[in-house]
Amino acid sequence: MEIRTYAPQKKQGLVVVITGNGKGKTSSAMGMVLRAAGHGMKSAVIQFMKGDLYSGEWDGVKYLGGLVALTATGKGFCGIEGNPYSHAEHRKNAQDAIALAFQTMDTADLNLLVLDEINNALHLNLVDLSQVEAILERRPEHLHLILTGRDAHPHIISQADTASEIHEIKHAYRLGIEPQPGIDF
Amino acid sequence: MEIRTYAPQKKQGLVVVITGNGKGKTSSAMGMVLRAAGHGMKSAVIQFMKGDLYSGEWDGVKYLGGLVALTATGKGFCGIEGNPYSHAEHRKNAQDAIALAFQTMDTADLNLLVLDEINNALHLNLVDLSQVEAILERRPEHLHLILTGRDAHPHIISQADTASEIHEIKHAYRLGIEPQPGIDF
Repeated sequence: MEIRTYAPQKKQGLVVVITGNGKGKTSSAMGMVLRAAGHGMKSAVIQFMKGDLYSGEWDGVKYLGGLVALTATGKGFCGIEGNPYSHAEHRKNAQDAIALAFQTMDTADLNLLVLDEINNALHLNLVDLSQVEAILERRPEHLHLILTGRDAHPHIISQADTASEIHEIKHAYRLGIEPQPGIDF
Repeated sequence: MEIRTYAPQKKQGLVVVITGNGKGKTSSAMGMVLRAAGHGMKSAVIQFMKGDLYSGEWDGVKYLGGLVALTATGKGFCGIEGNPYSHAEHRKNAQDAIALAFQTMDTADLNLLVLDEINNALHLNLVDLSQVEAILERRPEHLHLILTGRDAHPHIISQADTASEIHEIKHAYRLGIEPQPGIDF
């Protein structure tokens, strides 16, 4: 059997939104980063809110031949039980992440930019709709932009080329099963 | 800020089903493989049906320090326009993939096994419900098992610890945009 390779006549950057309450949003973004690396494409990942709790992708991307830069800017999920930081502190972190996103988009040879949990950050007023709109406007035409996180803003979904809502059918933690490495973090 | 590392009191393998018609099923499985690699965990990926068309994850996983074995067993999507192979040929490939799944589960130090598109293969009668049930029964307790593909069988979902349905809000191809490397393949 011959293995074919698809080559689009027109290459273009896509805006992809991954939202919903189910498991798989950050995972699918990281899978696209892995896939892009297989094509020799360079990615950057900016994690909003995440940063206080280790997750395997932080080391996973280090394997990818220097093709991926990951920055976790946050201090955990704003407003959840046990998180000790104020809304103002979370907002400051998220604003730093927005600045980093603009700076990163100017990297000439970047192919894919993941803004992980930015939908959630917008929903929680850690960033403003106008800021996310400005990122979409500034995006170079060749750059893929992936925006993850629950509660995506309808206007951001309207700007996307591809958008998925991941619905939770069930989740292990509801069965009292603790988060497991490799799957949940 | 101190970075914490979660360590579950009880480590256990999870059965994860990722289904639905939206973008992100294989991507999320590959993201979990990347995350697992960050933890030093070994994965195997068996792709049902896929195999006739190059996808970036085939080379992406080669970066992961020898922690991942990926096998694409198929000849494309059974029944879609332009696919020249008969149902019998597709079924033979899928049956080979089932045999490989059983063989792979016996690998002592394997932490995570992805059966990509197996839900779809079951829906298309390329594999039998009894065969997928037998895989679930044979699964070692420590092994994470991820089953992807649209149209997951309700009985398989009932056996899962975590299950997500990825709903398509929109997809670039409906706008006439061709599949793009790094995102779609």
